[in-house]
Amino acid sequence: MSLAMLEPDPSGALGRLREVCTEQGLEALGGRIERLMGLVSSDMDAYAKELDEIECNDHKVGRSAAHLLALGGKRLRPMCVGLAARLGEGFSAGAFELGLAAELVHMATLLHDDVVDQGEVRRGQPAARLLYGNAASVFAGDWLLVEALRRVQNSRVPGQLSALLDTISRMIEGEALQLERRGSVAVDREAYFAVVEGKTAALFQWALSAGGRAGSLSNLECERLDRFGYNLGVAFQLVDDLLDYAGDSRDTGKQLFSDLAEGKVTYPLILGLEREPALHGSLEAYLAADGDERASIAEQLVRSLHELGAVADTRRCAHQHGDAALETLKDFPACPARTSLETVVLATVRRDR
Amino acid sequence: MSLAMLEPDPSGALGRLREVCTEQGLEALGGRIERLMGLVSSDMDAYAKELDEIECNDHKVGRSAAHLLALGGKRLRPMCVGLAARLGEGFSAGAFELGLAAELVHMATLLHDDVVDQGEVRRGQPAARLLYGNAASVFAGDWLLVEALRRVQNSRVPGQLSALLDTISRMIEGEALQLERRGSVAVDREAYFAVVEGKTAALFQWALSAGGRAGSLSNLECERLDRFGYNLGVAFQLVDDLLDYAGDSRDTGKQLFSDLAEGKVTYPLILGLEREPALHGSLEAYLAADGDERASIAEQLVRSLHELGAVADTRRCAHQHGDAALETLKDFPACPARTSLETVVLATVRRDR
Repeated sequence: MSLAMLEPDPSGALGRLREVCTEQGLEALGGRIERLMGLVSSDMDAYAKELDEIECNDHKVGRSAAHLLALGGKRLRPMCVGLAARLGEGFSAGAFELGLAAELVHMATLLHDDVVDQGEVRRGQPAARLLYGNAASVFAGDWLLVEALRRVQNSRVPGQLSALLDTISRMIEGEALQLERRGSVAVDREAYFAVVEGKTAALFQWALSAGGRAGSLSNLECERLDRFGYNLGVAFQLVDDLLDYAGDSRDTGKQLFSDLAEGKVTYPLILGLEREPALHGSLEAYLAADGDERASIAEQLVRSLHELGAVADTRRCAHQHGDAALETLKDFPACPARTSLETVVLATVRRDR
Repeated sequence: MSLAMLEPDPSGALGRLREVCTEQGLEALGGRIERLMGLVSSDMDAYAKELDEIECNDHKVGRSAAHLLALGGKRLRPMCVGLAARLGEGFSAGAFELGLAAELVHMATLLHDDVVDQGEVRRGQPAARLLYGNAASVFAGDWLLVEALRRVQNSRVPGQLSALLDTISRMIEGEALQLERRGSVAVDREAYFAVVEGKTAALFQWALSAGGRAGSLSNLECERLDRFGYNLGVAFQLVDDLLDYAGDSRDTGKQLFSDLAEGKVTYPLILGLEREPALHGSLEAYLAADGDERASIAEQLVRSLHELGAVADTRRCAHQHGDAALETLKDFPACPARTSLETVVLATVRRDR
């Protein structure tokens, strides 16, 4: 089951999703995803069309942005904006602009992250920086950020520009903390979650509460959606982190062990190090090695993490955050949007690529 | 004569400025600068204090921003915002926030530029990226940009957030064009001015017209200030470019020939290449060489540019833009703010470091 299937082309994705659900005996979730796609397919088409039509100038900076825009993606953040708005008065022009902004901020961070992490693969394709250079990716990220803020201005939904600026500050804070921890093998759950909150959860929080605002929901309802976004974001990142050790690079479009290679100590590794302190030695050896030796230490490390239950327990932790997200929805009246948000949670925590 | 002297500490700067003016027989300009400093010193103190108090977190990203903030600078953009506001209803809390925003955007671009250009010296000190790494400078730039936009929000001056977003887009466009031209020895005046407009003039345009808005000036008056800012910005950049070939690195805090080393073909070089096409050969040899050989070709190139009158004529072009800036002020009533804006132009075009 994979949210990676929820591409702008809903019919293709839907067919493949049904297959996967049938294979895995997940007919109930397959049916839910089918209903979700039915509800959001027109939103997603509109987003895809608009993102496709963003005019990128014909220079390296423009081509860097265009390259990333063309690679598509799950578009999970705009989908959440739309669903939150549908919990209230419905999807509107304002919600549409806010959804675009959420996706553009996400893309801006991908461009800057790839420069900072020297990432080489993004969505199964060469990262923009490999094609057009680091400099172009820095400016392309700046440009997408400005474009995002402009969309929020256009939305005319009160308070959302300030809220997004605060969110971007939190995201930068998460990146700054992650940078600080790089290459350190310290076992620090608190620091890990602080990074995840900034890097991933903050934008989901904004997406959900901004969508709620666009749908004229009350302060209390928007706060609940904020909590939903927080828990969905943390669950999403936990699964992303475990797939670094458990996924198939052909599916995620990411290199395996890329977090490890970048010296990022994520949750599965934290659990492993807590349970088997001797892994510190392997990790240090890994960071010092290269080539075949490095690959062989990595294989051994991953085997240990599985044996220690660290990968399975990371999935369990994602499920706990998923449950917390579902809990925040219980006081909303039953409606297709609420059911769809629940489906987003279920698909996120079960995602295996 | 140097605007670099207009530091947040006006009394110290003033003493030194008087000296330089006396040495150079520029008593009239010295007196003008003294009156300018009298008018803006309290604004400049307030800016310096506020910039000093911006809270930077204790991590590499925060320290990168703090490092640049502590290096001071001419604070020319906030000074312009304040003077434009004083042409109207006066310096206000709103104008203050807009001035800070102009300086913060400028600082954000310095951080990103140093990453992109692999700059090593900034304001006579090691660039932040040398102390804390490229990654920290990318995120620190993002953070200052967000902080700038927040200040514009706080100012509550209508329309200025959209105007600043448009300005930042133009700045990125200028950077993108400059990146495109890098390492090309094409003689292209039009492309040069397109880069200057985006990279430098755009933010001066915004600073002046935003200050005018804060001072409740009319649309027509704000358009005139926009033209003033454009011409001041172009003049400023032309002088900056000629100092790369003529200045003293101890004074500007910049390495000499740094534009040349980064493969940037600026106006003095364009004039030189137009007048002596044989310089193409030297330039290509320069770009291909390194070490002592490179330094020796650079010396030779600079000598040729002086002999061809390319440096003097770049100064002349700056004076023309300075005159155009002064022209835009002629319909404003005579007042200390107008006189001060004229002084800013005179000091900018005469700056020799």
